[in-house]
Amino acid sequence: MEAKACNILITGANRGLGLEMVRQLAAKSCPGCQIFAGCRDPGAPKSQDLRELAKKHPGLIHVVQIDISDLRSITDCAKKVGPLLGKGGLNMLVNNAGVAHLVSMKDITAKDMEESFKTNLLGPMMMTKEFLPYLQVAAKACGKPGMSCSKAAVINISTVGGSMAKSHEMFDMFPVIPYRISKAGLNMLTVCNALEFKEDGILFVALHPGWVQTDMGGKNADLSAQESVQGMLRVMKSLTEKQNGAFLDYRGDVMPF
Amino acid sequence: MEAKACNILITGANRGLGLEMVRQLAAKSCPGCQIFAGCRDPGAPKSQDLRELAKKHPGLIHVVQIDISDLRSITDCAKKVGPLLGKGGLNMLVNNAGVAHLVSMKDITAKDMEESFKTNLLGPMMMTKEFLPYLQVAAKACGKPGMSCSKAAVINISTVGGSMAKSHEMFDMFPVIPYRISKAGLNMLTVCNALEFKEDGILFVALHPGWVQTDMGGKNADLSAQESVQGMLRVMKSLTEKQNGAFLDYRGDVMPF
Repeated sequence: MEAKACNILITGANRGLGLEMVRQLAAKSCPGCQIFAGCRDPGAPKSQDLRELAKKHPGLIHVVQIDISDLRSITDCAKKVGPLLGKGGLNMLVNNAGVAHLVSMKDITAKDMEESFKTNLLGPMMMTKEFLPYLQVAAKACGKPGMSCSKAAVINISTVGGSMAKSHEMFDMFPVIPYRISKAGLNMLTVCNALEFKEDGILFVALHPGWVQTDMGGKNADLSAQESVQGMLRVMKSLTEKQNGAFLDYRGDVMPF
Repeated sequence: MEAKACNILITGANRGLGLEMVRQLAAKSCPGCQIFAGCRDPGAPKSQDLRELAKKHPGLIHVVQIDISDLRSITDCAKKVGPLLGKGGLNMLVNNAGVAHLVSMKDITAKDMEESFKTNLLGPMMMTKEFLPYLQVAAKACGKPGMSCSKAAVINISTVGGSMAKSHEMFDMFPVIPYRISKAGLNMLTVCNALEFKEDGILFVALHPGWVQTDMGGKNADLSAQESVQGMLRVMKSLTEKQNGAFLDYRGDVMPF
């Protein structure tokens, strides 16, 4: 992603992993790169760090309003960002925004499920659908065979919690049913998209960021956001068509579904 | 399921696999058994076969109205069926009702996703939640350790289409994204429920019925509904705590997630 001018769009970019990813990508960016940092409320206090970061990188970081739980907001975002992408199209979409409802089956409500479904699954799906034409432009503009994140890619930020094979390891600690279910669905979306768009040269990968010290992960987590994002960017840089449809962690290890 | 009086509830019981399952269970039932055959519209022409079957087995088959995409219908059903279960509770809930939207990413709408989510995932979840107290009664009433479908069990009818590991095998033929995603979510629900309620002695298993000649599977499918249900009932009868949280096919083979 550092070798040439790139257009990148990241959702949930005002804090946690999203903000750190924008920060690290901006620090390594080439002339002509554009990073579109999406967040629900760009003017809110919780978006102040992102606003300040964007000020330090004029022309590089564009803060864009987007609420991925709102379909109209997604289409509005595509209408605004699309024309700014130019002939290069969109090289990478990082579906990072997500929510976690900390509820087990005993306390769960349909509303918890619906909110997780909208933000963790339907949002990334409709983002991908809306920006698909721009990803296709980027893949064509590249002119080279194969797949990579510098050509055209969708990175879905998933979680080990979405792994059925590993659910027993941490279930008692994190029952979080709506989160697990929506992220398992996101993994399936990644697999299906990889199969449907492989001829277009667009790469689709689901990434587990590790257990990270963010608002979502808490203070006792294993990794800082900086370490997690360093790992994820290293993995993203290394991705080829061999990993299309894969579920990997921030070290590049294959995760079981 | 044949050894003693059992209370069983099956959704989507007016046609296809659900109807065939009611038919085969009724043919093998013991005195005192009750089969609650749920369907959206018991009075409709499409429920005629079920009505006729129920007439042949008075006191055994109870046709109950339930629309699993409607939360109020689920609670209403529990209010009606609950008192009929008596001290034995509910021994088996078969979450069979489902929909398949035959759309790929190119044609998909948020509405397709929401309908699949509601019927294939939220419906089974809320059915399980509403009937959980009755399943707990059944598990306690049994008085024996271990797990089985004659003690207390939830069988979620899933599909190979919900397997990420196997998606590439049939994707071009059946892109069916909302179906695959919602069934992957249903598999995750099965895993989570198995973990959360293992101390209660309630068994949770996801079953792939095979590719069956039903309205959903089409005429070219491998199996008749009769063959598929024969296989599934054989598997269900053989289940123990060892299979809690498993994803199996109608032959009892373990399916990869």
